[in-house]
Amino acid sequence: MKRIALFTLLFMSIFTFCFGQGTWIWYPGDYDIWLGNEVNNRRTERGAFFPPFWKMDSHYVLIEFSNEFDLKTPEEIHIYAEGRYNVKLDGKLQEGMPQKMILPSGKHTLNIKVHNQSCVPAIYVEGKTVFTDSSWKVTFEDKEWIDESGKASDKSTTVYQNAASWNFDSPAQRPSLFKLDQMPMSSLGMTEVGKGTLVDFGKETFGYVTFHQLHGRGEVGIYYGESREEALSVDKCETLDKISVNNDKAEDFTLPHSKAFRYVYIESDEGVHFDSLSMMYEFAPLDYRGAFRCNDEEINRIWEVAAYTLHLTTREVFLDGIKRDRWVWSGDAIQSYLMNYYLFFDSNTVTRTINLLRGKDPVTSHINTIMDYTFYWFMSIYDYYLYTGDLHFIKQIYPNMVSLMDFVLGRTNADGMVEGLPGDWVFVDWADGFMDKQGELSFEQLLFCKSLQTMALCAGITGNETDEKKYTALSNALFSKLDTFFWDDRKKAFVHNRKDGIKSDEVTRYANIFAVLFDYVDSEKKQAIRENVLLNDAIMKITTPYMRFYELASLCALGEQPYVTKEIKAYWGGMLKLGATSFWEKYNPAEKGSEHYAMYGRPFGKSLCHAWGAAPLYLLGKYYLGVSPVKPGYEEFSVEPSLGGLKWIEGSVPTPHGDIRVFMDKKTIKVTSSGGTGYLVFSSKSRPKTSRGKIEFLGNNRYRLFLDGDGGEYILNYRAIL
Amino acid sequence: MKRIALFTLLFMSIFTFCFGQGTWIWYPGDYDIWLGNEVNNRRTERGAFFPPFWKMDSHYVLIEFSNEFDLKTPEEIHIYAEGRYNVKLDGKLQEGMPQKMILPSGKHTLNIKVHNQSCVPAIYVEGKTVFTDSSWKVTFEDKEWIDESGKASDKSTTVYQNAASWNFDSPAQRPSLFKLDQMPMSSLGMTEVGKGTLVDFGKETFGYVTFHQLHGRGEVGIYYGESREEALSVDKCETLDKISVNNDKAEDFTLPHSKAFRYVYIESDEGVHFDSLSMMYEFAPLDYRGAFRCNDEEINRIWEVAAYTLHLTTREVFLDGIKRDRWVWSGDAIQSYLMNYYLFFDSNTVTRTINLLRGKDPVTSHINTIMDYTFYWFMSIYDYYLYTGDLHFIKQIYPNMVSLMDFVLGRTNADGMVEGLPGDWVFVDWADGFMDKQGELSFEQLLFCKSLQTMALCAGITGNETDEKKYTALSNALFSKLDTFFWDDRKKAFVHNRKDGIKSDEVTRYANIFAVLFDYVDSEKKQAIRENVLLNDAIMKITTPYMRFYELASLCALGEQPYVTKEIKAYWGGMLKLGATSFWEKYNPAEKGSEHYAMYGRPFGKSLCHAWGAAPLYLLGKYYLGVSPVKPGYEEFSVEPSLGGLKWIEGSVPTPHGDIRVFMDKKTIKVTSSGGTGYLVFSSKSRPKTSRGKIEFLGNNRYRLFLDGDGGEYILNYRAIL
Repeated sequence: MKRIALFTLLFMSIFTFCFGQGTWIWYPGDYDIWLGNEVNNRRTERGAFFPPFWKMDSHYVLIEFSNEFDLKTPEEIHIYAEGRYNVKLDGKLQEGMPQKMILPSGKHTLNIKVHNQSCVPAIYVEGKTVFTDSSWKVTFEDKEWIDESGKASDKSTTVYQNAASWNFDSPAQRPSLFKLDQMPMSSLGMTEVGKGTLVDFGKETFGYVTFHQLHGRGEVGIYYGESREEALSVDKCETLDKISVNNDKAEDFTLPHSKAFRYVYIESDEGVHFDSLSMMYEFAPLDYRGAFRCNDEEINRIWEVAAYTLHLTTREVFLDGIKRDRWVWSGDAIQSYLMNYYLFFDSNTVTRTINLLRGKDPVTSHINTIMDYTFYWFMSIYDYYLYTGDLHFIKQIYPNMVSLMDFVLGRTNADGMVEGLPGDWVFVDWADGFMDKQGELSFEQLLFCKSLQTMALCAGITGNETDEKKYTALSNALFSKLDTFFWDDRKKAFVHNRKDGIKSDEVTRYANIFAVLFDYVDSEKKQAIRENVLLNDAIMKITTPYMRFYELASLCALGEQPYVTKEIKAYWGGMLKLGATSFWEKYNPAEKGSEHYAMYGRPFGKSLCHAWGAAPLYLLGKYYLGVSPVKPGYEEFSVEPSLGGLKWIEGSVPTPHGDIRVFMDKKTIKVTSSGGTGYLVFSSKSRPKTSRGKIEFLGNNRYRLFLDGDGGEYILNYRAIL
Repeated sequence: MKRIALFTLLFMSIFTFCFGQGTWIWYPGDYDIWLGNEVNNRRTERGAFFPPFWKMDSHYVLIEFSNEFDLKTPEEIHIYAEGRYNVKLDGKLQEGMPQKMILPSGKHTLNIKVHNQSCVPAIYVEGKTVFTDSSWKVTFEDKEWIDESGKASDKSTTVYQNAASWNFDSPAQRPSLFKLDQMPMSSLGMTEVGKGTLVDFGKETFGYVTFHQLHGRGEVGIYYGESREEALSVDKCETLDKISVNNDKAEDFTLPHSKAFRYVYIESDEGVHFDSLSMMYEFAPLDYRGAFRCNDEEINRIWEVAAYTLHLTTREVFLDGIKRDRWVWSGDAIQSYLMNYYLFFDSNTVTRTINLLRGKDPVTSHINTIMDYTFYWFMSIYDYYLYTGDLHFIKQIYPNMVSLMDFVLGRTNADGMVEGLPGDWVFVDWADGFMDKQGELSFEQLLFCKSLQTMALCAGITGNETDEKKYTALSNALFSKLDTFFWDDRKKAFVHNRKDGIKSDEVTRYANIFAVLFDYVDSEKKQAIRENVLLNDAIMKITTPYMRFYELASLCALGEQPYVTKEIKAYWGGMLKLGATSFWEKYNPAEKGSEHYAMYGRPFGKSLCHAWGAAPLYLLGKYYLGVSPVKPGYEEFSVEPSLGGLKWIEGSVPTPHGDIRVFMDKKTIKVTSSGGTGYLVFSSKSRPKTSRGKIEFLGNNRYRLFLDGDGGEYILNYRAIL
């Protein structure tokens, strides 16, 4: 049922005889903002439209596209546009809106200018050699005036970008018509409950409910539930639809709006009848490139449910909760990106989400209004560059990074630190206890420091030395204060915050977790944090998979995989034991029954399918299979596998060059990789042997083997230290 | 044919029994930007779409409207919206998109949130006491998050504005449906010319051509001309339409797009037939509140044609040329505003145009890309405040003034002066000779200085003392340099520019005109400028009515009305003698025949109906009737009438309080005014007498009489000094 894809294939096969391969193009970032707004606006709460509470930006409504050509023979081109447009050939305006024209031979310039308020100005041009692609220039301000004598202005200072595109590769695939893929799914069956009918689809899902043979007269209420209890609670379920039926002829009817649910409860007037219910499952057509298996079936099931959770939440953009919040959140999204690098490795959805979150200038508040979410946004660009090596994107987004950082720098205090000012949401995490959000939070300063480092990195990448120096100086200045301001020598840990110049006594996990992850402390302090904070039950516990993501990652970074394995089994396994078919927004083992569904003061407020619930995807890929990029785009990578108390593990991690496959048991390690160069690092009680290459001894039972990314397999014999 | 107005009346008479008077409301400035974009996008060039070459901004697509109520009894309200919306009562989201609801008695808060990408989010609420008006608050970023327990965020720091509205006072009058008024107009008749039919509408006009009894099969070309020559030039006329006819039944057909023309030439295929042509004249429904008559019939005709010219160019916004450019230009618009204060006194069209020109942040170029046009924009706000006293608008626009001035200040040189940087269009004026646009132009610095003074004034008005001090210091610093940098003591005039630190030798009129108008020089220098520049034929002549506006105003300010009267008769009278029915973009008496129609290297490139051609409206109102505001909104005003060599003059000038009527001949002055207090200042050879009040003697034949704005007439007997 990949209808769009099929259509494209047919279409292209007809046209490729005479035309080059064109694609729809637009101003970079604009389609992402437009499509993302569409998605953000699909959130509903009990039938009411529920858009975001932050500024929603628009695409540029007027765009000029241009390119230069040098043709050996005259060439016919066809022009398609989303919006009203005009065409200039060598600066001369053509009459009307030409749909085709002949380009003369020789050197020529073509300009197409498109206006569209409702959706993104976009064009598709196809000729034998002239067609739209990323070599086209775009600008929102062409400054093409003429003087009194008719002389054209000097456009040399007009700011151009290279056009952006996705995969709309035929004239009929207009970007504004984009839909995710759909396929029909049936339910486990219907049950009469109370005055209505309950339908169970067997697992968390997402799509459009279809009534079969619907007819009669009257009202129908459709109540969605991620749990049975929620669907049956017609007064309290989070999402619902209401339709009026007035049709003597029995027909199939699919609801126009998508919802997330496992259960659907139908209450209809007596005069309304239908045979059964099914659904059109809606999904992003992405392949699972990452994989993980091990000897523990519970862990395998956790990986599968995590993958399904991420697939459900990976839509036009990375959503977090698919039932209720259905907006894009920066702190949640950065985790989706990281998991994505170990499952789909889909770059488009990452950059689309980053562009949407950033929106347009001027910056009037933090991203999603949340201070920490602004910092995660910067950090996500660092990650993106490291995993994909996509320099083009860094260059495109850099000006938007600068203006967002200007906003942040405009709100620092005399010590160059950030505090929550009126209108800022200092989030950190949902916590089952009081968390002080006042003053300078150590957690926020660490994220701020990492963001400044990201700025310096990207300034360097884009060749802006002045900026690089500026951000390096700022990040160094902040870094040097972290210890003085927040490290407590008595408690051997970072304290939570500092208010009115006074260091607090309270220790929380947040800053300590990130100090380890960012490698901001020496190994002595790392060990202190491990003992005094991470493995200390007296410190307030993390109860969201969101912060567990970082907590468990930091423990893995400290080599605590065996401990983490147990935690994964207890926490994610705990949800599975309660019947979870996707992972939740929050999980507290102490809660009972339908207490698990409540949040935000509402009985079904909690999302039971939340991207940040899928953390094991990342943990198992990065810290068990042990694969991560060392240089941007996996040009260099490391493989440091860890059994974490398991008997064997195997799997693959996607990279821009292909997949890296890893197998490990207590005696053997096997690695295959294509593209880039890497090294395998491991510990062995005995001297290891390899089928290829030469093993280096690093001391202290540690060994390294350099890997050629030639697709060949390396087989090692070693003895695991348990 | 004021259909909308009629409909409203009917509608309101039905509803006012049970409902209060509501009006459609939106985020301030947004409707102006949206409607203005619609207008700017209607420009065509020989059938091709021709949008602006600067950044086109959008309205905020997501807006929250809110208000608080204290009701004695429960009240039903009806809700209408342009866009998808939700409704919260006391923070509780209501199901669906309620079209009516009951507000309970007591104190309550109502929030309505609307999304609309295509047009401006707007609402209309009507109840007995609760209805939409400017007391409603609006924001594009409501920051209404809830925490984990369901507690709502503190919204105290959300930035609200008061809602804006216009005259859409019934639910059916959706702002997006707005159209100017229309009425049918017939032509003077049809003539067969060549292969086609020429239709003459008798004068410059604007609207939609109607074919009567159109039928048959084939193509029809419609060629518009402001001149007969243009309409007949099917290859070179600036605007045209092409339609296909395929209809056996003879029917009337009106073209969907409006055009400016006097003549229409039709060439159709043989199979196409029609009986006759008429048009739907489209116009802004505004009354001429200003008036001017005198003993010279040529001057009277000039005033009438100027008024008609301004009426044609006063549309949804103030256009300049209605045939070709059909965009809004800041330098042209400021003159329309000033003329408007002496004809329609329509504030809405002024603020709508100011908002459109400014657009949204970030500022990426000068307004219309032209440096001087940025400065005129600031100056237009000074004028607007002086004439209307509209403090509310100043408060609303002030943040946008600051960000535009930040852009300007970010581009000043080491001397704090502006020079044309790459991408800036330094316009000044169209000139029939070489004009140096390099370096620091004295003209630009004067306008910049006046803009900084406007910033200081508006900062003071809005209570921002820090800004007031800053802009005062900046304007003083710049002012103090004007003399040193640009005054030439030998030539006794301001020189044109300064390049690489060297004062040029060349004197042009521009800076000298504005030095007089802004009162930037003492009376000795004013007299020097008059003789060495303004009345000196050796200085390059002004050939646009645009700069003649300021040139003649400066001469009037120096008391040269008799000279100006001759100039008006020669220049505007010259156009009338050539058959002008509206005033032109440019007029050079030395040109012959159809040379007058050429500009921009095109034979019909010149606009024959250009707002900046209507200058006499302003000159005669301000410097002959002599009426101008002294304090904002005519709270205080002055009347200094001048015969300017005429035998008698009479007329009226509109103010926010009513009209000020003035009559003057050589023996009598009569003045009537309503509202505000004013004074009449005049010269008399003999001791004057008055019917009311007491005349003060000011010395040197000058007298002053204070005027009570009570609607009563003052009659003075005096003896004119000729």
